[in-house]
Amino acid sequence: MEVKIALIGCGTVGRGLLEILDRKSDHLKSAFDFEPKIVAISDLLKGSILVPDGIEIKKLFALLDRGGRIDQYFGKGKTAQLLNPLDMIEQCEAEIIAELTTTDIKTGEPATGYIKKALRSGMHVVTSNKGPAALYYHELRKMAEKNNLFFRIEGTVMSGTPVFSLCEGGLAGNEIREIKGILNGTTNFILSKMELDGMEYTEALALAQELGYAEADPTADVEGYDAVGKVVILSNVLLGGELTPANVKREGITALNRTMVMAAKEQGFRYKLIAQTKKAGAKIEASVSPQKLPLSDPLSGVMGAQNALTFDTDLMGKVTIQGAGAGKTETGFSILSDILAIHRRLRAKF
Amino acid sequence: MEVKIALIGCGTVGRGLLEILDRKSDHLKSAFDFEPKIVAISDLLKGSILVPDGIEIKKLFALLDRGGRIDQYFGKGKTAQLLNPLDMIEQCEAEIIAELTTTDIKTGEPATGYIKKALRSGMHVVTSNKGPAALYYHELRKMAEKNNLFFRIEGTVMSGTPVFSLCEGGLAGNEIREIKGILNGTTNFILSKMELDGMEYTEALALAQELGYAEADPTADVEGYDAVGKVVILSNVLLGGELTPANVKREGITALNRTMVMAAKEQGFRYKLIAQTKKAGAKIEASVSPQKLPLSDPLSGVMGAQNALTFDTDLMGKVTIQGAGAGKTETGFSILSDILAIHRRLRAKF
Repeated sequence: MEVKIALIGCGTVGRGLLEILDRKSDHLKSAFDFEPKIVAISDLLKGSILVPDGIEIKKLFALLDRGGRIDQYFGKGKTAQLLNPLDMIEQCEAEIIAELTTTDIKTGEPATGYIKKALRSGMHVVTSNKGPAALYYHELRKMAEKNNLFFRIEGTVMSGTPVFSLCEGGLAGNEIREIKGILNGTTNFILSKMELDGMEYTEALALAQELGYAEADPTADVEGYDAVGKVVILSNVLLGGELTPANVKREGITALNRTMVMAAKEQGFRYKLIAQTKKAGAKIEASVSPQKLPLSDPLSGVMGAQNALTFDTDLMGKVTIQGAGAGKTETGFSILSDILAIHRRLRAKF
Repeated sequence: MEVKIALIGCGTVGRGLLEILDRKSDHLKSAFDFEPKIVAISDLLKGSILVPDGIEIKKLFALLDRGGRIDQYFGKGKTAQLLNPLDMIEQCEAEIIAELTTTDIKTGEPATGYIKKALRSGMHVVTSNKGPAALYYHELRKMAEKNNLFFRIEGTVMSGTPVFSLCEGGLAGNEIREIKGILNGTTNFILSKMELDGMEYTEALALAQELGYAEADPTADVEGYDAVGKVVILSNVLLGGELTPANVKREGITALNRTMVMAAKEQGFRYKLIAQTKKAGAKIEASVSPQKLPLSDPLSGVMGAQNALTFDTDLMGKVTIQGAGAGKTETGFSILSDILAIHRRLRAKF
C-alpha cells in the first residue's frame, strides 16, 4: 500500500532514511505492505522539490553525489521549486511529514511551526528533532489527537533504539516509576577513554573531536545540555510530567579528572553521566550528573558511544535497553520505525 | 471494551495474571479501554468453572487462600463444573484462551492439543508454554493466520521482558542476523556465585536449590535443556528457522569449576551460559554452551537471576534488552502483554 511522505530537511537523517527506503524497498513491501512514495523534499541549503508521482531515490542520490542540489532534480511527474517548508506542506498532499531539521533546544523553532502547520493540514508528523519534543510535546500531541493524527518522536532519544515504542508496546500496562540512563555518546566515549586508556579529560575530548564524536564547541555534550533535552522528553512523554529544561538539575563532566576516575575504578565503581527522572509524589524530579555506579549496575557496562536506559516498573521490575544513540542509519531508521508504526495502526493488519 | 478470556491452567502464572488484572483494572480500563472478563478457568488440580458473567477475582482468591478449590467457586451467573479443558473451550465463548499449563518440551502436550482446539474454535491464543512454541510454532501460527487469529508467545522467552514484541514493534524493518543471550536465570545465578563469592559448583547449586531458583532435579537448567527450548523458539520465530531441540548443539555448566571461573576472571573474562543462533547462508546455526565473554560484552554484566538478549541487526547494529527471566508477576504480565497486543490490533485505536 502506497504511503505518501514528505521530508522537511534532508541532511544526515534524511539521507539515512532515504538510503534505507531504497535499499529495503522489497522487504518493506513484502513484510509490511508498505510502499513509501516521497512526494516532496524541502531543504534549507539544497532547495526544494515537489514530485507528486514520487521521487526516484537512486536518481536523487546520483545528483547529490556529484555535488548537485535537490532542486536540480527532474523526474517523472510535475516538479516545482518551492519557497519554503510551509508552502511545501500546503502543496504536497503527503500523508506523513518527516520533520528532520536541526534541533534548537532553546526555541524549538522553526521545527515547531512546521509541525503545527502539518498537523493543522491533516498530516501525521514524525520527527527526530529534540526541540519541539522537549518544549511542546503535550501541546503537539493534543493537537494531533484532536485531528486523529499521530505525532511520533522515537528518534529524539537513543536514535532508532526502541524507547517510546518499547514503552507503548511490550511494556504497556506497567507503571514506569523511574528512568535512568546514559543518553549522550560523546561523554560516555570520553569517560570510557579516561578509564580504559588512562587519558586526561582534555586528551579524551581531543580524541573525540578528532573522531567526529564531539563537535568543535563541545559544550552541549560535555555540560549535559543534550542529555537534559532528552530527559525532559522522557519525563513528559513517559512519566506524564510537564518539565522544561530549566527544571532539570544539571552537572556536566568537565570537573572530572583522571585521578577521580581511577580512584573510583580502584573501589569497583565507574563514572557515568547519568540522566535520571522519577516520580516523587505528584512531582517529577529530573537530573543529569556524573555518578559513580557499582560494576553490578547494568548501565556501568555501557562503554564507548553506546546509550542505554533502565526503566523501573511496577510489574516487570527493571528493564534495560542498550543500543546506538546516534548515527545516520540509526536515526534514519527511527523515522522509518515511526512511519511503520503509523502505517500499522492505520491499516491494522498485523 | 469487554474482552472475554478463559484460562487453561491456574498455577503460578495464572495467579500472577489474575493478580495484575485485579490490581490494575482501573488503569487498564482508562489507558487501554480494556475490561477483561474471566469467563472460565480449567485447572488439572483445582477443578474447572464456567462463569459467563465473569469471575470475581477477589472472591476466587479468598476461596483459594483458605485452601479451597476453583470448582468450589460460586458467583453471579451460571456456574458449571467441567470435565476438561477441551470441554471448556467448547462451552466458554471466550475471545482469547490463555494456555498456562506446564511445559513438556519433549511432546508439547497436552498444551498443543488445547491450542489447536482453541484456534479451530475461533479463539485467539496466548501462551507462556515453551513446548508448543518450540515444537509446533509454524504449524500453530499458520493455523491462527488462516482463521484471522493471533497466536502469541511472549512469555516463552524472558517472561514478560519484551522480546517478540520488541522485534515486531520497534525493531520492525531490521533484518536480525544473530541473537545471543543469557536465557537461564538458574545457571546465571550459579555462575555469578562461583565468581563473586568463590563458591564451588556444587555449593552454588545447593544455594540455588535452597533459594528456590533451582529444582531438586536441576538437569533441565544446568545441562542447558531449558535454554535449548528457548533458542529453538527464537530461531524459528525471529530468524525463520525450522529447528527442533535436536538441532541445537548443547553443553551445560556442570563441567565448570571454581578454578576455571577464577582463571577467566584473572584474564578479564567471565563465564556465561550463552544461547546463540545465527543465519549462516540458508541455514540457522544454534547452540547453548558456556562461553568466556570479555567484560566489555553487554552480556557479561548480566548477573544473578537476570536474563538478557542481544540482537545483531542490519540497520541498528547491536540492541540488547535485559530484564527478568522468570517470576509470577513477570510471567503473568507476559500473558497480559500478549492480550493487550491483540486488543490493540483488533480495536486499532492507539
